[in-house]
Amino acid sequence: MADSSTNMRLRLPLLCIILEVILIILFGVLVEYNHDTDAKKWNENGTHTAHEYQNEFYYRYPSFQDVHVMIFVGFGFLMTFLQRYGFSSVGFNFLIAAFSLQWATLMQGFFHGMDHGKIHVGVESMINADFCTGSVLISFGALLGKTSPVQMLVMAVFEVTLFAVNEYILLTLLGANDAGGSMTIHTFGAYFGLVVSRVLYRPTLEKSKHRNSSVYHSDLFAMIGTIYLWMYWPSFNSAITKYGDPQHRTAMNTYYSLASCTLATFAFSSLLSHDGKLDMVHIQNAALAGGVAVGTAGEMMLTPAGSMIVGFLAGTISVLGYKYLSPILEKKLKIQDTCGVHNLHGMPGVLGAVVGAVTACLGSKEVYGDGLKKVFADSESASWSASNQGGMQALSLAVTLGMALFGGLLTGLILKIPIYGAPEDTHCFEDGLYWELPGEEEDHTELTEVATQNEVEKLNS
Amino acid sequence: MADSSTNMRLRLPLLCIILEVILIILFGVLVEYNHDTDAKKWNENGTHTAHEYQNEFYYRYPSFQDVHVMIFVGFGFLMTFLQRYGFSSVGFNFLIAAFSLQWATLMQGFFHGMDHGKIHVGVESMINADFCTGSVLISFGALLGKTSPVQMLVMAVFEVTLFAVNEYILLTLLGANDAGGSMTIHTFGAYFGLVVSRVLYRPTLEKSKHRNSSVYHSDLFAMIGTIYLWMYWPSFNSAITKYGDPQHRTAMNTYYSLASCTLATFAFSSLLSHDGKLDMVHIQNAALAGGVAVGTAGEMMLTPAGSMIVGFLAGTISVLGYKYLSPILEKKLKIQDTCGVHNLHGMPGVLGAVVGAVTACLGSKEVYGDGLKKVFADSESASWSASNQGGMQALSLAVTLGMALFGGLLTGLILKIPIYGAPEDTHCFEDGLYWELPGEEEDHTELTEVATQNEVEKLNS
Amino acid sequence: MADSSTNMRLRLPLLCIILEVILIILFGVLVEYNHDTDAKKWNENGTHTAHEYQNEFYYRYPSFQDVHVMIFVGFGFLMTFLQRYGFSSVGFNFLIAAFSLQWATLMQGFFHGMDHGKIHVGVESMINADFCTGSVLISFGALLGKTSPVQMLVMAVFEVTLFAVNEYILLTLLGANDAGGSMTIHTFGAYFGLVVSRVLYRPTLEKSKHRNSSVYHSDLFAMIGTIYLWMYWPSFNSAITKYGDPQHRTAMNTYYSLASCTLATFAFSSLLSHDGKLDMVHIQNAALAGGVAVGTAGEMMLTPAGSMIVGFLAGTISVLGYKYLSPILEKKLKIQDTCGVHNLHGMPGVLGAVVGAVTACLGSKEVYGDGLKKVFADSESASWSASNQGGMQALSLAVTLGMALFGGLLTGLILKIPIYGAPEDTHCFEDGLYWELPGEEEDHTELTEVATQNEVEKLNS
Repeated sequence: MADSSTNMRLRLPLLCIILEVILIILFGVLVEYNHDTDAKKWNENGTHTAHEYQNEFYYRYPSFQDVHVMIFVGFGFLMTFLQRYGFSSVGFNFLIAAFSLQWATLMQGFFHGMDHGKIHVGVESMINADFCTGSVLISFGALLGKTSPVQMLVMAVFEVTLFAVNEYILLTLLGANDAGGSMTIHTFGAYFGLVVSRVLYRPTLEKSKHRNSSVYHSDLFAMIGTIYLWMYWPSFNSAITKYGDPQHRTAMNTYYSLASCTLATFAFSSLLSHDGKLDMVHIQNAALAGGVAVGTAGEMMLTPAGSMIVGFLAGTISVLGYKYLSPILEKKLKIQDTCGVHNLHGMPGVLGAVVGAVTACLGSKEVYGDGLKKVFADSESASWSASNQGGMQALSLAVTLGMALFGGLLTGLILKIPIYGAPEDTHCFEDGLYWELPGEEEDHTELTEVATQNEVEKLNS
Repeated sequence: MADSSTNMRLRLPLLCIILEVILIILFGVLVEYNHDTDAKKWNENGTHTAHEYQNEFYYRYPSFQDVHVMIFVGFGFLMTFLQRYGFSSVGFNFLIAAFSLQWATLMQGFFHGMDHGKIHVGVESMINADFCTGSVLISFGALLGKTSPVQMLVMAVFEVTLFAVNEYILLTLLGANDAGGSMTIHTFGAYFGLVVSRVLYRPTLEKSKHRNSSVYHSDLFAMIGTIYLWMYWPSFNSAITKYGDPQHRTAMNTYYSLASCTLATFAFSSLLSHDGKLDMVHIQNAALAGGVAVGTAGEMMLTPAGSMIVGFLAGTISVLGYKYLSPILEKKLKIQDTCGVHNLHGMPGVLGAVVGAVTACLGSKEVYGDGLKKVFADSESASWSASNQGGMQALSLAVTLGMALFGGLLTGLILKIPIYGAPEDTHCFEDGLYWELPGEEEDHTELTEVATQNEVEKLNS
Repeated sequence: MADSSTNMRLRLPLLCIILEVILIILFGVLVEYNHDTDAKKWNENGTHTAHEYQNEFYYRYPSFQDVHVMIFVGFGFLMTFLQRYGFSSVGFNFLIAAFSLQWATLMQGFFHGMDHGKIHVGVESMINADFCTGSVLISFGALLGKTSPVQMLVMAVFEVTLFAVNEYILLTLLGANDAGGSMTIHTFGAYFGLVVSRVLYRPTLEKSKHRNSSVYHSDLFAMIGTIYLWMYWPSFNSAITKYGDPQHRTAMNTYYSLASCTLATFAFSSLLSHDGKLDMVHIQNAALAGGVAVGTAGEMMLTPAGSMIVGFLAGTISVLGYKYLSPILEKKLKIQDTCGVHNLHGMPGVLGAVVGAVTACLGSKEVYGDGLKKVFADSESASWSASNQGGMQALSLAVTLGMALFGGLLTGLILKIPIYGAPEDTHCFEDGLYWELPGEEEDHTELTEVATQNEVEKLNS
């Protein structure tokens, strides 16, 4: 799969420019401001009975910004743990996300209902586009260090498209709930990436093994990503729920789930690690599984204690996955999962889907009162029943897994064509291939005129 | 106090799991969604005259997220200044906070009024729980590097409980104002931690002195914490004030106080330091004292200029404290205060309490108009007078100091039992005791095939 | 220009204290809470028909906090790319900003209309003060590493004042639109700073050349700044637009512009760099130009595709500027621009002004409906026409350039007086002049008692 040359000079610029030109043309033809964003529509006499504070912007924009931070700082810095791949982690994350959110706006707009042949955009499309981008970045996590930026952009083209198809099937055709994306984002992104990684299997990757690890400072940079993901996850899960109690409840459920998950993570990391010492990989990743696992049920009446139980389970299986399952995946199934997305997004995503299906089965007018229709949009229809909803949720998980496996296989095969400048097995996890690296610190001997030798030593430190 | 072994394998997992199981059981029995979070209650016909935008979520959630960032990134990274304690600073901060916010939800719910035997939670309980957590993290700052995570969790159990008792006395029994927690959070947390530190005094701590300092990069990581605390402090102080003008005014007063405090900090740091050079310890900490010092009076009609005066004083005493008082505390009073919380939270907290009492004395219908009752909830009662309110504020400071000293003493004695795996005096401020540390950077000699020697040197830099 | 001594002991404290005392006196005399912040006014019977959720706080405070993060973390960390100037970058940024926002509150309040001799402040004044501060920090970027903190505070005194004059001419006298400050903030700040840099030209600056570059970790710190600026720019441009659709639309236009700009940046960086490798300087800076370039037109009906075109152009000219124009500016025009603010703020700011003028010319009742007056405040007047508006926009750019050149020249000459402790040419880009630097990491040989040699090596890594 490695190419004779990893030089990006023509491939990357050409691809970026072509993609952006296509995006601009399609946006020009298809995309319009929606009612809350358009100067004319929002201010039309007659239909405009709403006050300014009812503009969707005020309900959703703060959540959008939190999600935005998760996508660019959260995912970007979480992946800087590698000692020599920080530029690529945060830089390619930036590139892939900037492309994906534009492409996702089109694909989601196309599938989720165009009006008079136009896609109408507002803050909710921005959140949905960021969500779809999150899925691509999860797949990127599985492939981190072993692919070229060109490969990742090509992957994004396909993954975003299939994400939109899967999301359409789940939310529109099956009527499933998945506000925080346990299925659409996490399960889909993780298994898609894992299958791509399987197709791109590198039998001699151990030649780059010495770079596939962290150093002290890179782990601290990664903790910036972790903590931002952890803090803003309540906003992520609640960003596109209905206004009022569902948004409020989802944020709170996620908050409790994550807190509980964190204690489970520290407990099992210490229990299973060498000498009872904590493992940064677990803290950086498994502590977040609680957010993934309430991505579907978070908007439901899961109760705070229920959320905490789910969070605890998620943290536990995630640490166990890092400890026991990842080595098996690599050795037996030949799946090289750089960031362990199977442990952070894969298994917790499936757990979240199952919890969502079970919680949906328990949905009733008794528990939700008139709020039932805000959580389950179809509940007003005569044919709706909680167990039906639960069934659709379970079916949604199956569809998602199928789409991810099929899509990952297809995309993996496309990415295997040796034209994208992928690194050799000996040069994985190395920024130097794609970035001009700065030199080392100068030794400042010029300073000796004015500084004591001691000071010079300090300066060099 | 040091144990024969600092191995956490059984102690930490056991404690985490037991605590979380207790939390889940108590949450299951006691905690319910409140009116704005519950699907049934919020959407009930009859009582539901409110529009969705009146859900408390939209008034408080953005502030909550800012507070959340302060707790996890602000406190966590502020403490990464130590050269070899970054993992513990940000990691244990994470663990302690994740536990404390759950425990605080219960304790505060218990003391602040249960309804039909249930604690009803919403975004305001999330903010209050984060506030209480802040207090524990302040105490952690005094003890940083000298304690085990097990000790810190045990401390949190006691400190959160006593915090809730103290808060109940101040806000409910005495009717004091303390929206930003100059007393309840900062004064309490600082003196509690200082007394614990006194009880756990380590006479030979200078054996770890070489690690009790920063390096260049660790100071930059710490500045991430500082700046986030500084920026979001207006949200912290205003997060649970009444809606409308008090929330607006509190944020603004805090903004001006901090700006003024920053100039005082730079001025006195340069004036008092060696050769007129600035000291990072001052900038990282004293510049924040302005937020602490308007924690009580911020919601009152302190005026922008008044806020700036308070901020200037706070920055000044904080720098003076770091320069002159901390060495005395350590030598004479045997209080080893790693982060200098006495200078950042202790003295500025007391200043804030005094400013609050004085400003309350000046509260009148003339100045506040109909807004008086939004700031002083009891002001509608016939027996209320501004000087009474001021007296209660002053009494609240005394109670807080008493509770902190008593609580710190009790907790310190409990923490002194040598069963928690505390580090030896020779091994303080050292991540290696509790964390698996990554190796050093590889020397990448494998790259020589394709890279020039010059490039290799660059890569190694 | 270099002084005999860079010792700040008297100069910096004296200046800080004098400035803060003047600020406090002027605030005491001139500044009052506005209607939405004052306890009496907001709660007055009769005039108070507004509900709490209509307090300006809830419309603007989340945007304010995002802007605040951009000023303190965004600008502060973006400049930490220099290997040995991190303390100064983030620290002086902090100091200058804390002063400037107070001074700006006074200057902007003075020029933008006092009421009964008083300046009335609320969240909008906080945003405007932060905006003005941004302009000063842009100028600081041009001068980074070559000036003393005293010089920068003196510059801020003048620049803030002239900023307020220019803003008054543009927004009040000419009736121009510039919500996101393409002209008032970016063009003004950049050219002001470039002229100052020209006046302070250092012919032998190459003696500090070895420090005027990044190292691996400093580039990662800088990416924190970049990403936060990028993410929150939609809030920046929309922070003070009218409520409802303009705020919503501006945020969205900025979002699309930046995404498109990022792809252009990666494309041209790879195309023009050595061996097709990406250059961190471009990614850190040029990817942000898309936010600058829609600072004027963002609130207009620019359309998503229009925003993307503008963003693409901005990213392209910015990379080209770094590659080809900056060396010419330095060699031919003797303008030493440390951060390349001409490429990030100068040219994209001018582009933004031009785009704003063109888009304004296309403004009509047909496109904007009743929303026209929310974007163009004067459009209700009979004499208004879109082409007139466009003309005023173009004139505003000319005025801004004139004010920046004149102001920069005047300020530069004042800063050239050798009394401010500026560094020698041999000591530029060096924290050690103004900061007590921490020592290097200890070698922990004390640990050998309990640690294996191998562990010691790890600890030292």
